[in-house]
Amino acid sequence: MVILGIDPGVATIGFGVIEAQRGHNRLIQYGTITTPPGIPLSDRLLLIHRDMGQLLELFHPDEVAIEELFFSKNITTGIAVAHGRGVILLAVAEKEIPVYEYTPMQVKQSVAGYGKAEKRQVMDMTRRLLRMDHVPRPDDAADALALAICHGRAATSLINTDRKFDAKKYDTR
Amino acid sequence: MVILGIDPGVATIGFGVIEAQRGHNRLIQYGTITTPPGIPLSDRLLLIHRDMGQLLELFHPDEVAIEELFFSKNITTGIAVAHGRGVILLAVAEKEIPVYEYTPMQVKQSVAGYGKAEKRQVMDMTRRLLRMDHVPRPDDAADALALAICHGRAATSLINTDRKFDAKKYDTR
Repeated sequence: MVILGIDPGVATIGFGVIEAQRGHNRLIQYGTITTPPGIPLSDRLLLIHRDMGQLLELFHPDEVAIEELFFSKNITTGIAVAHGRGVILLAVAEKEIPVYEYTPMQVKQSVAGYGKAEKRQVMDMTRRLLRMDHVPRPDDAADALALAICHGRAATSLINTDRKFDAKKYDTR
Repeated sequence: MVILGIDPGVATIGFGVIEAQRGHNRLIQYGTITTPPGIPLSDRLLLIHRDMGQLLELFHPDEVAIEELFFSKNITTGIAVAHGRGVILLAVAEKEIPVYEYTPMQVKQSVAGYGKAEKRQVMDMTRRLLRMDHVPRPDDAADALALAICHGRAATSLINTDRKFDAKKYDTR
């Protein structure tokens, strides 16, 4: 199963594509979509939507995993990220690809075995699990790969156990 | 000039279309786009994007006015609204229609003459300015009409004075 992990944003969107099969992960590609500052938000959303569409066309993921949003820190940044995330989810929905969301804690738990693991530990485990000779850069892309690995594990365990999978929880009201 | 005002959301999006000319406003249409609860957010965004596209095709607005987001109250709701707003801005950008944003206070100031006017006063002034025999319902549609009136005044004064217009302030970083 090909999984696309997405670390949402407006200025920088991280993506990571892996193939997950019976507990094994194979790296396909990773990187970022970026939009220039100083242009209207609506134009940045246009670029994100276009580039996301191209990414989905290129890698044909079976499923998408995206980070859930939490705003304890900067609400203004959070609002902008949510605008970008809306457009990303739209691009995925247009291709009728199932999308699942995970909290940072779920990703840490899955990849590093501990929900409060440090970023460095998660990155190093991501590198090992994908048999890379260096830690993926930038951080947004590394986060996206960790999301993909996390979803691969959840989805594989779903297939194995035939249990209901509760990662998808999107209702807003 | 035909102006489309938008009160953004995910469950309910208010819209109001007016023609503004030299200080006179003519009501064209108003209403809401709604999405059903209990379906995934990404599917709701798909509906919003489709319906917004249809709205823009139908009324061919010259300019769009949308409410700026503030989150003093419910951050979770605010995040959902920002997802919807992102998709709305995308639909507008796809048609290359200029979009302007206003704070609720700017709308109150423009429509009711007082930035801290009560909702009821703003609605009643909206009704009068558009020569309607009743206050527009629901509130989301009334808010959208008030936004359109507010933008009509700002845009008209821009044309009259040839001054730079600073309502459009979209940069996120």
